[in-house]
Amino acid sequence: MKVVRLSSGISIRRTIAEGTEQQVTAVKAIIQEVREHGDQAMLRYTEKWDGAKLISLRVTDEEITQAVKRFDPQLAKDLTEAAENIRAYHESQQQKGYRLDSEDGSYVAQRVSPIESAGLYVPGGTAAYPSSVLMNVIPAQVAGVSRIVLISPPSQDGTLSDGVLVSAHILGITEVYKSGGAQAIAALAYGTESIAAVDKITGPGNIFVALAKREVNGDVAIDMIAGPSEIAIIADESAYADEVAADLLSQAEHDPLASAVLLTTSEKLADAVSKQVKQQLASLPREAIAGAAIANHSVIYLGKTIEELITAANQLAPEHLEIMTTDAEAVAERILHAGAIFIGRFSSEPIGDYFAGTNHVLPTNSTARFSSALAVYDFIKRTSIIRYSEKAWENNKEKIARLARLEGLEGHARAVESRSWKKETNK
Amino acid sequence: MKVVRLSSGISIRRTIAEGTEQQVTAVKAIIQEVREHGDQAMLRYTEKWDGAKLISLRVTDEEITQAVKRFDPQLAKDLTEAAENIRAYHESQQQKGYRLDSEDGSYVAQRVSPIESAGLYVPGGTAAYPSSVLMNVIPAQVAGVSRIVLISPPSQDGTLSDGVLVSAHILGITEVYKSGGAQAIAALAYGTESIAAVDKITGPGNIFVALAKREVNGDVAIDMIAGPSEIAIIADESAYADEVAADLLSQAEHDPLASAVLLTTSEKLADAVSKQVKQQLASLPREAIAGAAIANHSVIYLGKTIEELITAANQLAPEHLEIMTTDAEAVAERILHAGAIFIGRFSSEPIGDYFAGTNHVLPTNSTARFSSALAVYDFIKRTSIIRYSEKAWENNKEKIARLARLEGLEGHARAVESRSWKKETNK
Repeated sequence: MKVVRLSSGISIRRTIAEGTEQQVTAVKAIIQEVREHGDQAMLRYTEKWDGAKLISLRVTDEEITQAVKRFDPQLAKDLTEAAENIRAYHESQQQKGYRLDSEDGSYVAQRVSPIESAGLYVPGGTAAYPSSVLMNVIPAQVAGVSRIVLISPPSQDGTLSDGVLVSAHILGITEVYKSGGAQAIAALAYGTESIAAVDKITGPGNIFVALAKREVNGDVAIDMIAGPSEIAIIADESAYADEVAADLLSQAEHDPLASAVLLTTSEKLADAVSKQVKQQLASLPREAIAGAAIANHSVIYLGKTIEELITAANQLAPEHLEIMTTDAEAVAERILHAGAIFIGRFSSEPIGDYFAGTNHVLPTNSTARFSSALAVYDFIKRTSIIRYSEKAWENNKEKIARLARLEGLEGHARAVESRSWKKETNK
Repeated sequence: MKVVRLSSGISIRRTIAEGTEQQVTAVKAIIQEVREHGDQAMLRYTEKWDGAKLISLRVTDEEITQAVKRFDPQLAKDLTEAAENIRAYHESQQQKGYRLDSEDGSYVAQRVSPIESAGLYVPGGTAAYPSSVLMNVIPAQVAGVSRIVLISPPSQDGTLSDGVLVSAHILGITEVYKSGGAQAIAALAYGTESIAAVDKITGPGNIFVALAKREVNGDVAIDMIAGPSEIAIIADESAYADEVAADLLSQAEHDPLASAVLLTTSEKLADAVSKQVKQQLASLPREAIAGAAIANHSVIYLGKTIEELITAANQLAPEHLEIMTTDAEAVAERILHAGAIFIGRFSSEPIGDYFAGTNHVLPTNSTARFSSALAVYDFIKRTSIIRYSEKAWENNKEKIARLARLEGLEGHARAVESRSWKKETNK
């Protein structure tokens, strides 16, 4: 791995490019086709790109039943336990409304309610992750979303992976469709004959999915556009090089554009980790992917003090940050910007990906400065409520009219004043 | 006003177009210029488009002091009282973190912290609204954002409006810049010699501001892209036509693209409101703007039952919804989608724009289905924290490794398992 000494001048903030103009044009055309031709366009695209000739887009109950039957019961139990942990963590995110009453009989309030429908995109093929089903569906369920839909590209034989279907089954989701790419996002956003539109689309995907989500944003809500995975590890001489290397590789294996960064004060550890990465890489099934990520997007930064490492980590604002130092809790206290922080040697990052209960949908590309993990908050909306009494109106009407006129909005002033106009004739 | 009878088939959802390709290209070029040439580009654009030849972009303390001196003390008092109400409403939005401890010594937690810096864009000229300063700055302050910056286009004489400067002063904001349009957004997003970049940009603006916000989104956070103002009023025969008309016009006067909709069961009220709108319009200073909005984007919908009106209102999901019926509270309970609900005759919409305390930055274009008012939540971020104990790791490592292998992510499995590898040689 490349080793770079931290110095005050260098910027380690990360930005990853976002698709070519050709890709944007292609995505726009696909969305237009789906809006115009609905299911017929969906079936055509699914045959063209997924190689699957479907009769119906909807997964049948029978398909789900069969997937559950042939699925390894131990894995089903693991998924169920993971789902319980995730649900427990997200339950604490329930938001309440509030109401502030005044003595004059007026009140202002905030009402919290779930959005009505959400669609989760689940990537297909080798990236068909059951854990993504859990991480996207559970916050929506805890929020109280009444209609939750899954959509995922089928294999050539027209099926979805058992892991995805079983996860849906564990969570009680029955509305599942077979379709991928920009066309799936278009269907969720605008609806087709067989797929009713949703209010919010979440879930990861390739560049076409990301561009389509960006395109439909505003007509429906979307979650963040997730970039390639990132991990940064702050480690001192107390850390074990093989563990640091293994954790770096766990994120590197996601994507050739993934980034694995070690921030350390120890040259000895830096050397040992470099060697371990090389050695462990050789036997990794996804060696080519992880190797590219390590070669092109990964660095070991050497700092003189832990202080310097903390500053660098805050600048990087990584998706995942592990802290493997003697005083890991104290270091974690001083991290301002990270999607998720993993404290201590036994908090290996995949624990958060699958099991601990926190959400694995996290801000990438240094956006943890202002973004957060997917959460229950993403599936609710808040409505402001104002009830003014006659007395409150009487007490405040002049102030409000003055403020409106200060802004040159005479119509606003008159609206407030209209309550005292003569009423004989105008009902 | 146009009168339309509600029927099950019609769609009353609203969408407004988003800028031409030429405008998008122009905005991209401006952003590029500011990124390359910084202050020099800012000064050049400010001379070109605002007609102001500036030496410095920053408003001086002296300018603020002078504005405060010459400002009407009664209006300053009104603004201060409005600010207090807004602060009181937003204080209830403070979010807390939480931590869930397990018996095995592990924990998961959510930490809530403010974003570090926010920039508020304030439109200039006739649309330089002091109330916008209050509505954008106060949630950021309640969230605990440490650096809050205002930016607003100057008049030809190089000054900002007293109302804006006094509002900044009331809130204790001292970092104020003179610049407008796409260049102001670019400066906030990427920084120049005299303006340090911020993490989040909020505030309304014209189409160039909106397009620029869309363009920089991701590099920094942005609030929603607000469309033209909207009001819908549900009213029965108990409502006063002059008040309904005045409230409709209060939103119509914002923008020729604004929308004012009456939903009523009473033909008599519909007729009377139509007449009142026409009559009141004639004496409105912003008659041309309000008249265009009424003619082109406003409708009276007649329904047979209140039921039908509620269904239509939920489909419209308006920015502002007034309810002027005999059972206004009961109707409000059944509204699922609206930015803000104003209950009863004395809750005229401008009360919310200026004074009640709720935020006037609200979702438009039917996005209240999934979006909410600007709030403290928009200025915080959440960090997930995972601390696994050795025991927790021991108890769960096999499950986690199995789930990783189910997804074909061997590197993830090995990372979790690496804690039990032999340690002799690799530190």
